[in-house]
Amino acid sequence: MKNKVLLDPYSRQLTTIFTDEDLARLHAVADLLWARDELAPDAVVEQHAAELTVIICGSWHYGDVARFPKLRAVLEVSGGFPTPQRLDYAACFARQIRVLSCAPAFGPAVAEMGLGLALACARQIAWTDAAFRYSEPNWSHREFATVIGDTFTLYGKSVGLIGFGSLARCLKSLLVPFGCSLQAYDPWLTDTSLREQGVAPVDLHTLLATSRVIFVLAVPSTSNRALLGHEQLTLIRPDTVFVLLSRSHVVDFDALTALLLAGRFRAAIDVFPEEPLPADHPIRRAQHAVLSSHRAGAMGEALHMVGRFVADDLEAICAGLVPQRMQVAQPEYIQLRG
Amino acid sequence: MKNKVLLDPYSRQLTTIFTDEDLARLHAVADLLWARDELAPDAVVEQHAAELTVIICGSWHYGDVARFPKLRAVLEVSGGFPTPQRLDYAACFARQIRVLSCAPAFGPAVAEMGLGLALACARQIAWTDAAFRYSEPNWSHREFATVIGDTFTLYGKSVGLIGFGSLARCLKSLLVPFGCSLQAYDPWLTDTSLREQGVAPVDLHTLLATSRVIFVLAVPSTSNRALLGHEQLTLIRPDTVFVLLSRSHVVDFDALTALLLAGRFRAAIDVFPEEPLPADHPIRRAQHAVLSSHRAGAMGEALHMVGRFVADDLEAICAGLVPQRMQVAQPEYIQLRG
Amino acid sequence: MKNKVLLDPYSRQLTTIFTDEDLARLHAVADLLWARDELAPDAVVEQHAAELTVIICGSWHYGDVARFPKLRAVLEVSGGFPTPQRLDYAACFARQIRVLSCAPAFGPAVAEMGLGLALACARQIAWTDAAFRYSEPNWSHREFATVIGDTFTLYGKSVGLIGFGSLARCLKSLLVPFGCSLQAYDPWLTDTSLREQGVAPVDLHTLLATSRVIFVLAVPSTSNRALLGHEQLTLIRPDTVFVLLSRSHVVDFDALTALLLAGRFRAAIDVFPEEPLPADHPIRRAQHAVLSSHRAGAMGEALHMVGRFVADDLEAICAGLVPQRMQVAQPEYIQLRG
Amino acid sequence: MKNKVLLDPYSRQLTTIFTDEDLARLHAVADLLWARDELAPDAVVEQHAAELTVIICGSWHYGDVARFPKLRAVLEVSGGFPTPQRLDYAACFARQIRVLSCAPAFGPAVAEMGLGLALACARQIAWTDAAFRYSEPNWSHREFATVIGDTFTLYGKSVGLIGFGSLARCLKSLLVPFGCSLQAYDPWLTDTSLREQGVAPVDLHTLLATSRVIFVLAVPSTSNRALLGHEQLTLIRPDTVFVLLSRSHVVDFDALTALLLAGRFRAAIDVFPEEPLPADHPIRRAQHAVLSSHRAGAMGEALHMVGRFVADDLEAICAGLVPQRMQVAQPEYIQLRG
Repeated sequence: MKNKVLLDPYSRQLTTIFTDEDLARLHAVADLLWARDELAPDAVVEQHAAELTVIICGSWHYGDVARFPKLRAVLEVSGGFPTPQRLDYAACFARQIRVLSCAPAFGPAVAEMGLGLALACARQIAWTDAAFRYSEPNWSHREFATVIGDTFTLYGKSVGLIGFGSLARCLKSLLVPFGCSLQAYDPWLTDTSLREQGVAPVDLHTLLATSRVIFVLAVPSTSNRALLGHEQLTLIRPDTVFVLLSRSHVVDFDALTALLLAGRFRAAIDVFPEEPLPADHPIRRAQHAVLSSHRAGAMGEALHMVGRFVADDLEAICAGLVPQRMQVAQPEYIQLRG
Repeated sequence: MKNKVLLDPYSRQLTTIFTDEDLARLHAVADLLWARDELAPDAVVEQHAAELTVIICGSWHYGDVARFPKLRAVLEVSGGFPTPQRLDYAACFARQIRVLSCAPAFGPAVAEMGLGLALACARQIAWTDAAFRYSEPNWSHREFATVIGDTFTLYGKSVGLIGFGSLARCLKSLLVPFGCSLQAYDPWLTDTSLREQGVAPVDLHTLLATSRVIFVLAVPSTSNRALLGHEQLTLIRPDTVFVLLSRSHVVDFDALTALLLAGRFRAAIDVFPEEPLPADHPIRRAQHAVLSSHRAGAMGEALHMVGRFVADDLEAICAGLVPQRMQVAQPEYIQLRG
Repeated sequence: MKNKVLLDPYSRQLTTIFTDEDLARLHAVADLLWARDELAPDAVVEQHAAELTVIICGSWHYGDVARFPKLRAVLEVSGGFPTPQRLDYAACFARQIRVLSCAPAFGPAVAEMGLGLALACARQIAWTDAAFRYSEPNWSHREFATVIGDTFTLYGKSVGLIGFGSLARCLKSLLVPFGCSLQAYDPWLTDTSLREQGVAPVDLHTLLATSRVIFVLAVPSTSNRALLGHEQLTLIRPDTVFVLLSRSHVVDFDALTALLLAGRFRAAIDVFPEEPLPADHPIRRAQHAVLSSHRAGAMGEALHMVGRFVADDLEAICAGLVPQRMQVAQPEYIQLRG
Repeated sequence: MKNKVLLDPYSRQLTTIFTDEDLARLHAVADLLWARDELAPDAVVEQHAAELTVIICGSWHYGDVARFPKLRAVLEVSGGFPTPQRLDYAACFARQIRVLSCAPAFGPAVAEMGLGLALACARQIAWTDAAFRYSEPNWSHREFATVIGDTFTLYGKSVGLIGFGSLARCLKSLLVPFGCSLQAYDPWLTDTSLREQGVAPVDLHTLLATSRVIFVLAVPSTSNRALLGHEQLTLIRPDTVFVLLSRSHVVDFDALTALLLAGRFRAAIDVFPEEPLPADHPIRRAQHAVLSSHRAGAMGEALHMVGRFVADDLEAICAGLVPQRMQVAQPEYIQLRG
């Protein structure tokens, strides 16, 4: 008999994350309940609670896991893990209910955007294009601006990664042909573990003061809010490109804005404290910044990758095997993020 | 006794192409004559002609090679080979005088810019940045424009390379992590040779009609002027990004401009028929183009790579060894280029 | 206050698995108890039971996990997981006690031996060396034996992997430069998961009938005893090299011996049903076999890698982080292995 | 009109080097003359001399190149270049007649054998197999012999390459997954050129004294006869594996034999001063050696690769393009080899 699976991906839409082929794969291995774009009403959940072995959801809004005596896995499709305020992780762990996040599905698309933004800054692509349209670009191949350093290539440069999770690993693979030396700051990994992956573990101060390109990739947590404040940001060299990819939570955005308006270094920014960003936010006037409206991961191919990961792991779970694609919640992370 | 070497890199400047270290390497292996930024006067050349074994030049302006009875190599630092109108290649080949071009020194920098421009188009980086400044970017993560297709990643896409020389090989190495399938059109290589390098040989029509990203990398020749005319350019799919990197010589630029203004496909352009481009050239208004003012190779690091290649190969030549870094003129290419 | 850790690696010796440096790392992060080569007496265990957070052991001989109220991890150094008959996995899972195996530490050494054995067979290295000493090798470069096929290279061949765990991944990385096409049979992974890793999922029959080199890498379980019986082994092509690496448990060894004595295919064998193998075992006379006395993993460097993995993961655990190097027991595997 | 091509591969046989497919490719692009396994009689050569544009030969036995007014290329299929005593290279260079050697076609097969022999020594594969048959192997996983060091893996070891040509590059690619540090001695390449390829240039003394695995890959020349004499060979560490692949010409074989019989280090040897090696040659009794009867390159697949290279390059030449697969004779090498 097939597994009973609640498919309740709201606020994602079914067709946004599943190709026809992947949806067919879900149907092939499981008895899908609900399977609509709207949030499943509690009555529907209640009706099937006793039989459900897997819940695919946008976030956990089902109350106590004790309602689901056969539950073996929670597959979350929004991009993060359900918050510990809403989901009782202790109960999940005690019952070996795996809680899985689709975050890794966004890794390749976000990493590509990170590389594209770094190149757009380092090689002055966006600014040159704008100059064609509003003034005149630099044909003599001299540099666009001397205040904040020259055009440079990524080849052989020192790259600093703040956070070294699945996104950083995707970015690392894109940087291989450039022969960069990689250094990382990640308090959730041991130095040994970083070295083993070919990355030099460094403290935050060293990373900021010595990297030619800095990528902010850290997942937001209670312990890293405004980790990069004014003091830290002023460590960045004037010839450095700073790429903010994961969440603005990690930086003091006002400090960053002030430093960019002062021309202290170059930056590319995909995430903002308020989205949409107010029309009069001063960072819109920062000359040496490339601004991107939270478009690194939110694109068709990445969303279909979410569906692919869900289908792959549901196949594994229904076959009694260990899921391989989504990220599994670990007790240590929940405690640390707590 | 050291080799006598004429160092006459005009119009390149010595300090532009040589680091102190590389200039010291030249001095270490050879007796450098002239070694100034200005063009060597003919009187100076004449004075040393009988002893010169190597000439390092911006282009050949020394007349008959018979003047140089001991000449073994010509190292050109401008980026192309001396024209057959000025240099008697037949005489060089008959005497085993190697004619070497520094073109490969620009490969990494140009390839990086090619990737950066492709990402800036495919991921709409330049347009989004402009929208922050002059209107409002798309925060709902829907696409910027539906006329010419959606944002897309390079992962797994079909990439067409027009010309498969040293630049293409540099670009190929950057594309490895994206898992693209590569197809190439290059009339100077056999199909077998392309396949051996992991690239599918295709005719130009197929390449234009089936590639999701097209890179124009061909060295200009008498046989490829306006190779990409209106008819060929209309084969390009609306969801394709067209990247013009090597020389505008290869395309009918008016046809390209008209198609881009009509929104037929997306493009990134680094080379123009006239540079600087006239202020009223209509392509400056093309919405779906990223424009770059011939900045792919003309940058400090790439110019220093020229000096590095010259120093490396001069070391080899002075030691009686085969040079390894610069490109050696081959009889077949001279004939084909005519 | 440091974590209390029982270090009881018997039957491994401390100096066999730990370098001085790695042992110092253990001492730096934990308060090590016992730490001797002999098995810890139960009295010693009992004395510290209430405080122990980690147990490093050769196998589980400590009875009920309830004795250890603070236990968070069991690190096993022998090469397998503790048997479910001795360790109550359900209790461990319910309490989020990680059970970790050092098996992956042997992966590189065993994979290298697998490649070496495959080359010794395919290129007839052992047989040729023996011929120099006891008869005369084939100098005319014709083949040693025509009954079971010719000398061949691994380049571009079809390689079949029976079992695709950490050992197979190590072997896969060594095969990359040979450009082999890989196919695998592993009932514990979904087809999707195999394809994602660049390996074609196939059934056992197809694998045996179509691979030019076959590696047996499967971990022994109740379900794969004598998986490769006479019927299966006769599917192997005469020009194939069969490499038995993981455990003889997986094959009907009598059937294998008979087929090799009949010259049906070539084989390299590192594991035997009885070790040492009786002096009169007929496989010792098999001409087309390379025999190895269980030496793939049991070597100094691999044993030191065990200690390295233990030190790395103990550092992580003591820092409240997720261990990264050893293999974590998963509920599904315990169930499947029964 | 098709090119007239003399196909005279003696002492190679046509079917030994050409698959049906590659022979068909030759016929498709050229008018093949002779095309038999026997040596072409001079009368046949004379009959076509005036029209021949390409000669495919086992070695040059055609006298003065002036006989062939239209000759553009000589493709040699034996494995080396024609000797300067028989072929007038100066005349070839003056007329831009390319002289091409098929040597690179053997690179992959020889490199694979080099790796296989190194593993057979380092992991004691051949000796263990022999022990199964004639005595008893070491089941306790302790080392086979303590005189000359322990079993070791190639991972992370220092590897010394004597000669860094196309064979070394093939071997380098096979060693990539092992993470070895590579050092090379090659007087025909500049230090810069070696560094550029990721290899540390070292003098011969350093290489011999510090490498854990040494590969002799140098092409024989007048200047490297017995390059490795008794004095040099005694620099080798007792725990090193010495692999002699290219030609015994490069070593003092008597000195090598004596050192191996004295158990000074381990070795694998594929080439001998006399082949077949006399039955009473003392090296046959060397315990810590793996002996191979010149089988690294002389095998079916490598010979077919010769034909493939010839077909590929003949296609290029007949199309007026630059050949890409075979090695082109360079004036410097002819001079150096004298």
